[in-house]
Amino acid sequence: MHRPLPESFIPRDPAYAGRVRASFARQRAMALIGATLERVEPGCTEIHLPTRDDLTQQHGFIHGGVIGMVADSAAGYAAATLVAADAEVLTVEYKLNLVAPAEGECLVARGEVVKSGRSLSITRADVFAVRAGAWRLCAVMQQTIMNLHARPGPSS
Amino acid sequence: MHRPLPESFIPRDPAYAGRVRASFARQRAMALIGATLERVEPGCTEIHLPTRDDLTQQHGFIHGGVIGMVADSAAGYAAATLVAADAEVLTVEYKLNLVAPAEGECLVARGEVVKSGRSLSITRADVFAVRAGAWRLCAVMQQTIMNLHARPGPSS
Amino acid sequence: MHRPLPESFIPRDPAYAGRVRASFARQRAMALIGATLERVEPGCTEIHLPTRDDLTQQHGFIHGGVIGMVADSAAGYAAATLVAADAEVLTVEYKLNLVAPAEGECLVARGEVVKSGRSLSITRADVFAVRAGAWRLCAVMQQTIMNLHARPGPSS
Amino acid sequence: MHRPLPESFIPRDPAYAGRVRASFARQRAMALIGATLERVEPGCTEIHLPTRDDLTQQHGFIHGGVIGMVADSAAGYAAATLVAADAEVLTVEYKLNLVAPAEGECLVARGEVVKSGRSLSITRADVFAVRAGAWRLCAVMQQTIMNLHARPGPSS
Repeated sequence: MHRPLPESFIPRDPAYAGRVRASFARQRAMALIGATLERVEPGCTEIHLPTRDDLTQQHGFIHGGVIGMVADSAAGYAAATLVAADAEVLTVEYKLNLVAPAEGECLVARGEVVKSGRSLSITRADVFAVRAGAWRLCAVMQQTIMNLHARPGPSS
Repeated sequence: MHRPLPESFIPRDPAYAGRVRASFARQRAMALIGATLERVEPGCTEIHLPTRDDLTQQHGFIHGGVIGMVADSAAGYAAATLVAADAEVLTVEYKLNLVAPAEGECLVARGEVVKSGRSLSITRADVFAVRAGAWRLCAVMQQTIMNLHARPGPSS
Repeated sequence: MHRPLPESFIPRDPAYAGRVRASFARQRAMALIGATLERVEPGCTEIHLPTRDDLTQQHGFIHGGVIGMVADSAAGYAAATLVAADAEVLTVEYKLNLVAPAEGECLVARGEVVKSGRSLSITRADVFAVRAGAWRLCAVMQQTIMNLHARPGPSS
Repeated sequence: MHRPLPESFIPRDPAYAGRVRASFARQRAMALIGATLERVEPGCTEIHLPTRDDLTQQHGFIHGGVIGMVADSAAGYAAATLVAADAEVLTVEYKLNLVAPAEGECLVARGEVVKSGRSLSITRADVFAVRAGAWRLCAVMQQTIMNLHARPGPSS
């Protein structure tokens, strides 16, 4: 009873991976929390976040907003892998459920595209807390992304 | 055509403000980004976040996930003002719309309770970007909070 | 501590009310459940739904999906009051919290625009259950609407 | 790069299927729109909705709120398959993205549990429009369900 596999995603921009990695490198907020972009594939990305004491909420778990940051970025960049070379992606909105306390050595946020449209893309992310090699689902997200296409210039 | 004003919120815990401020002070992620809790009133709180370069996304605006962090905290603590002294609040989920680029000197996240129930509270937050004294709405959030009540001890 | 009043909404289409009412009249699903459009103002609308036994869920309250129907329509038409005469609105997504059982003589869904943009509008809706003249908040919604502009024709 | 398969869901109530079907049969709103419960398995259900003219919005597609109704019910009953025999499920909130116009002969809403907790369950639903045998994804939903446990009586 699994849903039909999505059609394979074919990036319009063959250089999508480099473009996405360069954009991620400009997200200074990702550097602040120590998040790294570990995988970039057509329609999906994976961000890793080693846990640190300065990322916690009042009970010592990783702050739900920090989980939202990596989920938002992972899913947004998943959408970005499929847009044209001169297009940009922008988060319209996201909805995040926190399903278990985020503790362990590292969080892994996997973003994937559900539907890639011309102006909007719909994505999801799963966030796992990794502890002693065991992965535990700690958050799920559903997101809407806007694809901003470069405007044609006066002579184009 | 405005909605009826909510009944006034009466905190069950007269010392709610100190309790909420102490909990916020333990959120190390809030210290990391430089957020401060500026107002604590029955059913609402306000968090301020001076903008900084290390909070930005790839276009130089404040990262949507950082906006989510302060919105999540502001609304969660709004719910916390109304629970019993020995209860805790936990974010179940939130949904954030980013409505304008977040730029300026400071973000202000205002959280307010829509409905405070025994086990769940529903809250909202508005996030404004303040620039040269002008406030611009940059995000709106709707959130579900779980109220965790202290378990009765063996002799109660 | 209320948020700043939104700037007044000025409809681009002076005939917005007639256009919105005509569109509502074409929503056959609204007729099926007996919903009526009672107010149409710039940036807001109100839909009334007399309760009926055939709209209930397993406990005899109005089905949460039916509440979503009137909330979705009320907020979508609120956005529609502000678009150009030849534009259409389309629901991108909505998020609905059910905060109290929906029972009484009538539901009232009030939709209002939070931000009206060129391509996207952000809206909210509150749904009240009316019983013996008393209004009780039973659901709140946050929604994203896409504004579809008519394509210029060959000679325009 | 698919997420790890969830552990198998083991229903606590061996008679879960009959219990879920009986509850669905009491949802008069499902009868009104002509929806039927076609599959009930541990952690997932499937609702079918033959399309009809009286379920449409202003452009002749199935109303987004009707899609929300079947998605909400499918996912809520997916959660219900896993609760104790005397427990009830209640929708706390759901977030629905409409990703393609809903047209065809039939809609199929598949609900599945992401995480089944003691007091809350997190679920998802995918809704497909079926046309001439082809399935097209038209909506995705993420939902929070509350599990209401029967209160122990005085002598239990």
